[in-house]
This record gives sequence, structure tokens and C-alpha cells, in this order.
Amino acid sequence: MSQRLADILEASEALFSEKGYHDTSMQDLAEALGLQRGSLYAHIRSKEDLLYAIVDRGADEFLRVLRPLAASDLPPDERLREALCRHAGVVAQNLRAATVFFHEWRFLEDKRRARILAKRDAYEDIVKRILEDGVRTGVFRPHDTALSAKLVLSAGNWLYQWYRPEGSLRAEEIADVYASLLIEGLRAPEGGAP
Amino acid sequence: MSQRLADILEASEALFSEKGYHDTSMQDLAEALGLQRGSLYAHIRSKEDLLYAIVDRGADEFLRVLRPLAASDLPPDERLREALCRHAGVVAQNLRAATVFFHEWRFLEDKRRARILAKRDAYEDIVKRILEDGVRTGVFRPHDTALSAKLVLSAGNWLYQWYRPEGSLRAEEIADVYASLLIEGLRAPEGGAP
Repeated sequence: MSQRLADILEASEALFSEKGYHDTSMQDLAEALGLQRGSLYAHIRSKEDLLYAIVDRGADEFLRVLRPLAASDLPPDERLREALCRHAGVVAQNLRAATVFFHEWRFLEDKRRARILAKRDAYEDIVKRILEDGVRTGVFRPHDTALSAKLVLSAGNWLYQWYRPEGSLRAEEIADVYASLLIEGLRAPEGGAP
Repeated sequence: MSQRLADILEASEALFSEKGYHDTSMQDLAEALGLQRGSLYAHIRSKEDLLYAIVDRGADEFLRVLRPLAASDLPPDERLREALCRHAGVVAQNLRAATVFFHEWRFLEDKRRARILAKRDAYEDIVKRILEDGVRTGVFRPHDTALSAKLVLSAGNWLYQWYRPEGSLRAEEIADVYASLLIEGLRAPEGGAP
């Protein structure tokens, strides 16, 4: 990626997260970057390209940090803790991109939205498989793993609304507290075996 | 509230949740309602009045269903379950308003945003007090109740992103599964006393 394109993406992230995708014009972007509107088109074809680039990069970043856990030897409870901490870390380090991701992805054109949805599903599947591993090995009690995966991701995702980097706890510390609570809630009764 | 004003609010909710607050013009609203743009101003002073009305009504609705639990005699674990189910019910019955509430409230002017923030804080406090009651009475183990309140509300709030009324589970059923998991996670060890 060229430096110029990286700058354009960063400015788009800022504007889309502040004003929303629809309310940001190419003219706004050009002004934020100190460029002529026309010269933006040397780097991208449309505003929607920018939205897709931001959202797709976000989806890839989530997958990049979580995929190694799918094949990890960690016990399922520790894998779940690690997954939630990594997830929270991605949200917290990309608060503006997360806002664009969660608010604006629905405005992608159909094919692109479907591609992002597939990545989101793959991501949720990694979490669900950790939970299923936990049930299979008797670490977690039998339960609806699709719903517990939603709960784990709800906890991590909602951070984008309230987490502030200047607060007293890092996102990973918050996620660790959440994880302890969720793991205790999922844990099989003492002595439970597969 | 006059029927006409109720219609205007409903149309605003639909447009703000679909296109976003900034991208909805008074002209869009007038067209959606089959009215002249000017005649909208017989009922409201500004587009921001509409945003405030939607968000404030949402905040009041959340408080209306949760406040009775603050003074309830139910044991804290059952009160927590009830709170999450009621919260999820409000989100699910008002998916469009919830989208406006969560995405657009930050665009309110300062005084109004502060008023909504105070209501959100009061709401979170009700949940936090249920959790504190649980710790004090030995039902829940000692823990950071500010964070567990955030976790409970994250679970309920995030429903607005993925819950679909045509799905196989009602929002209250999902919330009940979440609540069981959270309550087990919070529960004091067997025989734990205050």
C-alpha cells in the first residue's frame, strides 16, 4: 500500500467514524488531506472502495489475531480467555475503525457485504469451536455454544462504545475480568468428565 | 403527543436508523410523510429535536422497565435475570430506535447529551446495585461490580446488531440463556456466606 493510500484510509476512518459514511463526501476527504478532489481518484475508484478497505482490513485483523488460537494446544478455558483478550485488544487499538466496522458495514454493496459477513462468520466459528472443545473435553458444561459465542463477542465488541484509552484499565485487563466471569459461568461442575 | 407528532417520530426513527441522522434531511422526512417540508415545523423546531425525542424516549423506556427491579424483593440472582430479560425485550421491540440510540446519540448538543448520559448512568447504576446486593448477601462472590454491570449491558445491548424477530429464539429467551451463564459465573462458591 502506498503512503498516500494509507493516508487516505486513515482520513476516511476518521471522517466515517465521526460523521458516518453517508455524510462524508469526497470533497470532505480531499479537504482533510489537503488534496484536490480529483487527485483522490488516482488512488481509489469510489467512496465505497474506502469503506470496503476499512471494513475488510478490520475483519482481517480480527482473524489474524484469532486464527492461531484455533490450532493452539492451550486448554479451552485459557484459549477462550486469550481469544477475548485479543479481540478486545483489536477493538481498543482501532476504536475509529471499529465504529466504522460496526455502524457502516451494512452500507457495502451486496457482494462485498457478503464477503465481510463470511469473514465475520468464520471469526465467530473460531470462538464457537473453542467453546465446543471445552464442552467435549469436559471443561465446560454442555450448553448452546452458538449463544455463548455471541455473548463472548458481545462483551468484546461493546467495548468500542465505552472504552477510553485514558481510563484506568487497559482493554485486555477488562477482557480478562470478563473472561474469568464467563469461564466460571461455563465451567462444568466439579469433577465433571466428558 | 399528537398523532401527527407520533408519525413524525416514527418516520424519523426509520430514516435515522437506515441512513443515519446526519444524512437524513427535513426534506427526506417530509417526503416520507407526504407532507410539505414547512408543515413539519408546526410540530418540531429542528431535526435535533427529533433525535432528542427518540433517544430520550428510549432512555425512559429502559428506565421504566428496570426501575421496579431496584426496589424488588426478588433474590439478586433472579433480579439480575429479570433485568437482562427486560433489557433485551426493550432492545428487541425497538430495534430501529436502538440503532438510533446507540449510533446517533453522540450527535446531540451538549446539554441534551449530558441529560441522556445521566439517564444511562442511572440505568447502569440499577444493574450495578443488583450486583452489589448479590455480593452483600453472599449470592455472588466479591468482584468488580462496575465491570460485571458493563458485561450484563454489553450482552443486552449487542442484540440490536444481530437479533432478528424472525429468528428461532425470542430476545427474552436469549437473555435467559445469557443470564444463566452470567449468574453461574458470578455465584459465590457453594456454602459461601456474606
